[in-house]
Amino acid sequence: REKVIVDADMGILNDDAVALFMLLQSGEVDVLGVTIVAGNTWVEEGTAYALRQLELIGRTDVPVVPGAPEPLMGNRQPWLSAEERLWGNSEYLGAFSRPRPRSYLELDGEPYGGYPQTKPFSEHAVDFIVRMVKANPGQVTIFALGPATNLALAVRKNPEIVPLVKQVIYMGGAIDVPGNTTVAAEFNWWFDPEAAQIALRTPFRKQIIVPLDIAERVFYTKSEFDRIVSRAETPIVKMFKDLHGPRFAQDPDRTSFVWDALTSAIFLRPEIVVRMEERFVDVDTSYGPNYGRSLGYYESRRRSFGAPENFPAGTQKANVLFDIDRQAFWDLYVELIAKR
Amino acid sequence: REKVIVDADMGILNDDAVALFMLLQSGEVDVLGVTIVAGNTWVEEGTAYALRQLELIGRTDVPVVPGAPEPLMGNRQPWLSAEERLWGNSEYLGAFSRPRPRSYLELDGEPYGGYPQTKPFSEHAVDFIVRMVKANPGQVTIFALGPATNLALAVRKNPEIVPLVKQVIYMGGAIDVPGNTTVAAEFNWWFDPEAAQIALRTPFRKQIIVPLDIAERVFYTKSEFDRIVSRAETPIVKMFKDLHGPRFAQDPDRTSFVWDALTSAIFLRPEIVVRMEERFVDVDTSYGPNYGRSLGYYESRRRSFGAPENFPAGTQKANVLFDIDRQAFWDLYVELIAKR
Amino acid sequence: REKVIVDADMGILNDDAVALFMLLQSGEVDVLGVTIVAGNTWVEEGTAYALRQLELIGRTDVPVVPGAPEPLMGNRQPWLSAEERLWGNSEYLGAFSRPRPRSYLELDGEPYGGYPQTKPFSEHAVDFIVRMVKANPGQVTIFALGPATNLALAVRKNPEIVPLVKQVIYMGGAIDVPGNTTVAAEFNWWFDPEAAQIALRTPFRKQIIVPLDIAERVFYTKSEFDRIVSRAETPIVKMFKDLHGPRFAQDPDRTSFVWDALTSAIFLRPEIVVRMEERFVDVDTSYGPNYGRSLGYYESRRRSFGAPENFPAGTQKANVLFDIDRQAFWDLYVELIAKR
Amino acid sequence: REKVIVDADMGILNDDAVALFMLLQSGEVDVLGVTIVAGNTWVEEGTAYALRQLELIGRTDVPVVPGAPEPLMGNRQPWLSAEERLWGNSEYLGAFSRPRPRSYLELDGEPYGGYPQTKPFSEHAVDFIVRMVKANPGQVTIFALGPATNLALAVRKNPEIVPLVKQVIYMGGAIDVPGNTTVAAEFNWWFDPEAAQIALRTPFRKQIIVPLDIAERVFYTKSEFDRIVSRAETPIVKMFKDLHGPRFAQDPDRTSFVWDALTSAIFLRPEIVVRMEERFVDVDTSYGPNYGRSLGYYESRRRSFGAPENFPAGTQKANVLFDIDRQAFWDLYVELIAKR
Ligand SMILES: [Ca+2]
Ligand SMILES: [Ca+2]
Ligand SMILES: [Ca+2]
Ligand SMILES: [Ca+2]
Repeated sequence: REKVIVDADMGILNDDAVALFMLLQSGEVDVLGVTIVAGNTWVEEGTAYALRQLELIGRTDVPVVPGAPEPLMGNRQPWLSAEERLWGNSEYLGAFSRPRPRSYLELDGEPYGGYPQTKPFSEHAVDFIVRMVKANPGQVTIFALGPATNLALAVRKNPEIVPLVKQVIYMGGAIDVPGNTTVAAEFNWWFDPEAAQIALRTPFRKQIIVPLDIAERVFYTKSEFDRIVSRAETPIVKMFKDLHGPRFAQDPDRTSFVWDALTSAIFLRPEIVVRMEERFVDVDTSYGPNYGRSLGYYESRRRSFGAPENFPAGTQKANVLFDIDRQAFWDLYVELIAKR
Repeated sequence: REKVIVDADMGILNDDAVALFMLLQSGEVDVLGVTIVAGNTWVEEGTAYALRQLELIGRTDVPVVPGAPEPLMGNRQPWLSAEERLWGNSEYLGAFSRPRPRSYLELDGEPYGGYPQTKPFSEHAVDFIVRMVKANPGQVTIFALGPATNLALAVRKNPEIVPLVKQVIYMGGAIDVPGNTTVAAEFNWWFDPEAAQIALRTPFRKQIIVPLDIAERVFYTKSEFDRIVSRAETPIVKMFKDLHGPRFAQDPDRTSFVWDALTSAIFLRPEIVVRMEERFVDVDTSYGPNYGRSLGYYESRRRSFGAPENFPAGTQKANVLFDIDRQAFWDLYVELIAKR
Repeated sequence: REKVIVDADMGILNDDAVALFMLLQSGEVDVLGVTIVAGNTWVEEGTAYALRQLELIGRTDVPVVPGAPEPLMGNRQPWLSAEERLWGNSEYLGAFSRPRPRSYLELDGEPYGGYPQTKPFSEHAVDFIVRMVKANPGQVTIFALGPATNLALAVRKNPEIVPLVKQVIYMGGAIDVPGNTTVAAEFNWWFDPEAAQIALRTPFRKQIIVPLDIAERVFYTKSEFDRIVSRAETPIVKMFKDLHGPRFAQDPDRTSFVWDALTSAIFLRPEIVVRMEERFVDVDTSYGPNYGRSLGYYESRRRSFGAPENFPAGTQKANVLFDIDRQAFWDLYVELIAKR
Repeated sequence: REKVIVDADMGILNDDAVALFMLLQSGEVDVLGVTIVAGNTWVEEGTAYALRQLELIGRTDVPVVPGAPEPLMGNRQPWLSAEERLWGNSEYLGAFSRPRPRSYLELDGEPYGGYPQTKPFSEHAVDFIVRMVKANPGQVTIFALGPATNLALAVRKNPEIVPLVKQVIYMGGAIDVPGNTTVAAEFNWWFDPEAAQIALRTPFRKQIIVPLDIAERVFYTKSEFDRIVSRAETPIVKMFKDLHGPRFAQDPDRTSFVWDALTSAIFLRPEIVVRMEERFVDVDTSYGPNYGRSLGYYESRRRSFGAPENFPAGTQKANVLFDIDRQAFWDLYVELIAKR
């Protein structure tokens, strides 16, 4: 059985939650823990959502481990309007759009299904990642489904884990397409650009990236929703009904993306990959209009994979997902989500 | 008759030359002059090529006006390898790939058809642009087919021309796609990012941009070549035969782009435009991996065209070309190029 | 007789005015013209002040030539508050602190002594500089007493003048000391950092820099004022009485700096120089907290003047003034200012 | 008794070693541990030197705790020459001037006095700092005598320690003076600019900074050396004789700085402080000529301590040392170093 750590900026039945459900439902992997990072949500929110959803699906055996509460270079929330004046409004602010809660039991509003009864794991996400990787050398896949803050802290503090990690699978970046937060940057890598650069420049054995390039070409529609809710009502199916039902009732043509869910799918069923390219991927940390933008260097006349020094200072090779078999993906998605 | 200035980094039957030929052959526009800027070629090279090609087609009435010999912030050639070490090799270096010649009559090698007999116009391109715009208020379209150095100097030195320019049509930028020089930047705007930013942030009445987004989806193939050379042999048709013939003989499947040629086409036949979008376009001048990269801000939930201050500091609206009627384009191209 | 052009951001009896008066009063130099640049004042203000003060001292023979109305990369006034939020409030904003007037005859308030009767010279400052340098090859000293916008445009547009300029004497920069506008940057080079970098990186025969390092150690006090106003009342002495008198009446301990005046003094009497150092001087154009900051590279173990490539990309050698004979300076100052 | 952690880039009888000796010799403080960071030396070197020197002075009770082996954004050693080409040669490279050793027992050469017999503490410096601060809330002073990498990781990973730290005393920065590594940056903050920014922007109860402004005005000369070696020979006095003796024998006029030693002195004897100023201190992380440069914002007409938002985004107040009583300092220095 594959061992994985899911590092996520968890929401309520958001793509992080779905990615986690897919892994758990598969019955094929050993989820060592869910480590929480700020991104879509503050760590306090993500912790509560992860705990409660695991309770709802009866998987309280999976530890939920809170991590770094703010991006590496700090919380830009207080001066974000100055950034936006100079470099353009962001489309989506994630956690930055609201104040940080005082604790995972004092959120703005009660989470879906109420506050969790179970407790967060009493170890820091960074320490948890380091300990698990050391305990399972060469066996752990890390899913980096939010900003890379926890991962960056782990490899900088304990670089001895780097050769021991089996692989890192990121949802992040916009390699050959515009961003979804600023026109330049994808949300996860915009929220903490320095962490993303640190992680991507780490010489892991293997890095897989699921960027917007593919994520924004896979649409979740009423058709997929209908397939799920037509199945027997499990706790997960009920969540879909409760949370997505009203949206589709209001607008049956509504579509949305499922970003993180793609990482679980290609991990569980690599055969759905249609196109994966080798790139040297980096993140711009210049504090300007392209702050957080991804760069995907490729082999060419003047850059050869045979000579890594032809690629920019510090960058590492990664496998970037550009296309999948959508039919097979949705079949897997429905199968796992609706599994009893 | 429309009055135009063609500001170009002219080569031998390159896309700048073709764009110029199309305008001249149309018989519909008054080409006030061809101003030369460094980019694909050094100003000395571009001047010789422009003069000689105009001689070959019998249009020595069109003045060729040399302009700024180096980018605004200087010639980065001597330390380009350091830039490449940090931020990645460039695919194409244009003039930077060879030493600057001492004069337009002392090039590396004799131009196609020999050195020109005619002489460059004895006025600086910047002064020429300023004088022509003032002499023809509201009537002059400027084609910015190379780096924007001349244009930037003109508007900074003589901002009084800004409201008098009819429009600027740029070939440049890579709005929603990767660059062709670095992975981030299109060549013209990479060669002189500051000039491009200055020009684009100028409140011209109208700016039209032909970026890589469309330019890299229009392919010149043997089929188009064959249509041209099957026509009566004019000096231009002969040039195509002489210069493109051997290439297609060697590789009949060869394709290439015609970048600048698109500007002339949409100017002469606006009806071939299939999709044009309003964007606030900017160029990143942070000296880093995204130096020279374009940014195309669009209207959205958080950025409304009704409130220009929602767009980043200094940016201006532009019309960005995203699609054309390819069939109509190639028909026009062949018609004009082969016209007697 | 030495030939000079004074490029200035002229105020009313400000340091630019005093520097100009000193040159004119010396009777030793031929002031070819006063070119006006935005900085302390908008070009419209500077033009009016220069014209009027030359009228008052009976030197309407000296042309006043308006130049570039805004910094090279544009007027940052509209978004200066965002810059300040990120990188700190500026101590002094110069022209940015008020709206730009529509014409030199429509200022916020009537200048000292009323609006000028004489007219600005009908040529652009940049063209004037270029023409004068070409007409007097090897003979013209350019005083760059404000932002370097005009100078940068001149050398970029007409680089053929570079070897023909005798020397450039700048007031600008803070080489080994903090700035006076931001904590990092001196005003002139902060107002237009790109222009300053362009000018300083130009391979002029000779560049002399009078930075804050010395300028902020030379104090104008009531004692100097008293020496001036005790002399016979010329128009200049009257200006000092009218404009400085009330200030010293209110606060006899008041001190101020005379920045630009130092350039005229060391030009007219080089023997007052106590310490001048060779440096490769550059200006930071990264748009961040050090935007506009000067850097003064020196010879060292790892940077030898014998190997210019040991100095950063593009930089040039300059002579930086670090100390003067203050007594001799003030004697010269009083002598020239009070001269009949 | 005061509790302290000394976070240092330890060398052989370098300023870090002297600072540590002064604290230990005072008999007044409880040194909880010496945490090691890369800077002057690689962590492996620093660890060996710290262990061995503690053995030599009989203080093997003090734990030596290795920390982060590389700067936060990675080891720039492989492309440092590209940085230098663009932004100027560095005067001093510290650890970057040689390859990183494989272990603290396999250095380039045997340390002074041989390899240590004692072992490094088996906990990471970051965890050690966090644990000690939590165990001694409000009581621990952290001496940040090298790059701030360990400190930055600690506050980002475990921000709950921030209010529990008594104070941080940094040796670092060049507030109102040029740098000693690049012309812009002081070594510690140049080696890891992001870490320095993170640390300085942390809302610690109290931050004290000993910058080059004072450090480069305190000279260690043969006179101070003579005072030390004239005393009874303790292990420390012997080290001074062995290591400094030959240098002064060769050049009796030799002077050097004692940077870190100043931190211990003002901590042990605050009364030697002559001038301390409140500043909001930041570090430039723009990857350009001012990478790692300090900025010291002060109260002024437009920046009031009463309104922290007048200071740049994220910055915090610090107490910056600008002058000390040199006589008292050297008396203390000699007294502690030579103490039996
Ligand atoms: Ca996520
Ligand atoms: Ca072109
Ligand atoms: Ca001035
Ligand atoms: Ca140290």
